[in-house]
Amino acid sequence: MSTSIKQMMQEIGQRARAASRAMARASSEQKNHALLHIAQLIRQQVSDIEQVNRGDVERAKASGHDAAFIDRLTMTPKTIESMALGLEQIVSLDDPIGKISALQKQTSGIEIGQMRVPLGVIGIIYESRPNVTIDAAALCLKSGNAVILRGGSEAIDSNTLLAKLIQAGLTAAGLPMDAVQVVSTTDREAVGEMITMTEYIDVIVPRGGKSLIARLMAEARVPMIKHLDGICHTYIDVDADVAMAIRVCDNAKTQRYAPCNAMETLLVNADIAPKVLPELCKIYQAKGVELRVDSATRHTLESAGLKDLVTASEADWQTEYLAPILSIKTVADMDEAMNHIEQYGSKHTDAIITNNQDRAKRFLREVDSASVMVNASTRFADGFEYGLGAEIGISNDKLHARGPVGLEGLTSLKYIVMGHGEIRT
Amino acid sequence: MSTSIKQMMQEIGQRARAASRAMARASSEQKNHALLHIAQLIRQQVSDIEQVNRGDVERAKASGHDAAFIDRLTMTPKTIESMALGLEQIVSLDDPIGKISALQKQTSGIEIGQMRVPLGVIGIIYESRPNVTIDAAALCLKSGNAVILRGGSEAIDSNTLLAKLIQAGLTAAGLPMDAVQVVSTTDREAVGEMITMTEYIDVIVPRGGKSLIARLMAEARVPMIKHLDGICHTYIDVDADVAMAIRVCDNAKTQRYAPCNAMETLLVNADIAPKVLPELCKIYQAKGVELRVDSATRHTLESAGLKDLVTASEADWQTEYLAPILSIKTVADMDEAMNHIEQYGSKHTDAIITNNQDRAKRFLREVDSASVMVNASTRFADGFEYGLGAEIGISNDKLHARGPVGLEGLTSLKYIVMGHGEIRT
Repeated sequence: MSTSIKQMMQEIGQRARAASRAMARASSEQKNHALLHIAQLIRQQVSDIEQVNRGDVERAKASGHDAAFIDRLTMTPKTIESMALGLEQIVSLDDPIGKISALQKQTSGIEIGQMRVPLGVIGIIYESRPNVTIDAAALCLKSGNAVILRGGSEAIDSNTLLAKLIQAGLTAAGLPMDAVQVVSTTDREAVGEMITMTEYIDVIVPRGGKSLIARLMAEARVPMIKHLDGICHTYIDVDADVAMAIRVCDNAKTQRYAPCNAMETLLVNADIAPKVLPELCKIYQAKGVELRVDSATRHTLESAGLKDLVTASEADWQTEYLAPILSIKTVADMDEAMNHIEQYGSKHTDAIITNNQDRAKRFLREVDSASVMVNASTRFADGFEYGLGAEIGISNDKLHARGPVGLEGLTSLKYIVMGHGEIRT
Repeated sequence: MSTSIKQMMQEIGQRARAASRAMARASSEQKNHALLHIAQLIRQQVSDIEQVNRGDVERAKASGHDAAFIDRLTMTPKTIESMALGLEQIVSLDDPIGKISALQKQTSGIEIGQMRVPLGVIGIIYESRPNVTIDAAALCLKSGNAVILRGGSEAIDSNTLLAKLIQAGLTAAGLPMDAVQVVSTTDREAVGEMITMTEYIDVIVPRGGKSLIARLMAEARVPMIKHLDGICHTYIDVDADVAMAIRVCDNAKTQRYAPCNAMETLLVNADIAPKVLPELCKIYQAKGVELRVDSATRHTLESAGLKDLVTASEADWQTEYLAPILSIKTVADMDEAMNHIEQYGSKHTDAIITNNQDRAKRFLREVDSASVMVNASTRFADGFEYGLGAEIGISNDKLHARGPVGLEGLTSLKYIVMGHGEIRT
């Protein structure tokens, strides 16, 4: 690593650490004041933002980026307004910081409680989506953290301008502008430094595609809140309501294909398969979903006159398609379904459709995923849908934060001890 | 790494992972049955345990280990009985697994809750203290986890025998014996494999000295619950009760010198220093505590006739003595004290002695340590004293578990979603 990048990142880290102390002390009023001021500045400067963003977009087009990439990079009056609305929405969320659990008196006389506190300094590494700059900064700010933002290099001018507006908002509220810093270099070495500078960054939240996350996982020393895969399953139990199973499984796969909580593998009990699969798979095929099936499923579907089935390979059970493709397997019972989920799942989100209470309970308890659902679409695994108000990401790790991560996932608890001069004997 | 060690550890990991599924399902009754059966076996086999342990102790003596080492390794009827009592005590603790928070209905109709679940597979790496084999296994077992134990090589025969008793207890309760495995090789490569096999171990709890932990931190890929240093401070505020300050600070330093929660640095407000330091430091010196002081403290103490003071160096503020040595600094106010703690502390445990409510509140909120105390001895930072019932260790990291870690720190939360056929729109 070149000395200059390393030194620059260390300095950013030092400033963030210093700012984090002031952020931890900040009142809810100060933090909300900053967020509302940023929203106001964004609305005042829509045309400036659009103009700067246009430069980023033109360079990205000239470099040959595809339409989806350009779409994520482009800011319009509508997406800019939704950033401002997002800020106002985060203002409306309860401030978790400083809350103290009920104090418990111990036999020694001391009273023990836990206080919710910020993590300290958060690093966000993301692709060329300028809206993440505002969303992520706002969540970190509200939760009393300092944040270092490293967005995709194609969005650098947009992000730099947004950072200025954020810093103006912080200053207006009497908060340190170093609480939100955008890494100004597009050099990839900056990322390598971020994910290893454990003395200055408490946690990294990577937002982006699988290749980015895989690379960070291999090299990071700073803990991450992240998920690599979202291989989500729905199991249709023998005691499922057929109409519900069809409605929910259609939604879980086709409502949107790209999100990590979309269903990728459907598991069906053999005894109910003939009643549910033909109708459901006709819907999938009408929507252009390619079906990759095991031999029992093929038999069920071909008996009902369906065609154009692909034979699922071992690789299919391990694949997060994020596309109109679905793998389907017929299983003998819930245990086989749970074994399949254990073997091939990614511990993200898995659901059962059943009216059997005992099996619902077993599935909830035994499936080791961040979100386990009964009779609902996997697409609900989302911070807004869970009532968290917003999310910084989804974690399928088991430590610290698991599932959709909102403000609370950006905090920690510390023990507080209220004594009256007690000593240990 | 040699292929055979790697393969052996991978196989241990696979078996632990498989066993962890059965452990996650196990009822409280089964787990308690196993624990009580192990206690019974331990009591039945006191003389066998002593005899096997004697072999370990003789080899360790022959290798020239010091008295403290031999003391930790040696099992007596008394220490063996306290292991059995420890098991019974863990039986009496509430089983955290399967508890569900209140379900919250969302506007979509789905209901969201969180269920407490085991982490999965815990790895414990510890020194030659056979009692840890029982204590750690019991906590992991009660919290529904599988565990891989890698104790110090000098205790290998003792640990192997204890593992057999544990496995007999598991079998008697209908639980898989692979839920508790002792690594049977004393090869150090086994540790290197444990701390990197992220597919089989969810978290490592290292228990041991600083050099062990530092080495693991440099090489581990598996997350750890740990602390490296315990540089604990007490700040005597200008509004402290002098008698309380003396009593608490005496206790925090001298009740025991070796624990990580013993005070290592005393910070004193300049205005109260003449009233509290001479009397307190006479007590320290009478107990043989070496005092390393800054110039203001030296002035205060020498004016009161104290001698034999060592001048504190920069290194002293960074040192966890774990010995009858104390560094003392006189500060102008609480802000200087908090800045010192921020700069030199280890985020373990820090206390203030004060009758001023506003400063107590600020100290509690702003000092970024796992335990922050008002008017109490830092020696209280302990799982038993906090009412957790037992502890697997103390963490000064901010993610997942912070401070003394009991059963709950060995668990995670997953989201559970109860639907009625809802789909996302």
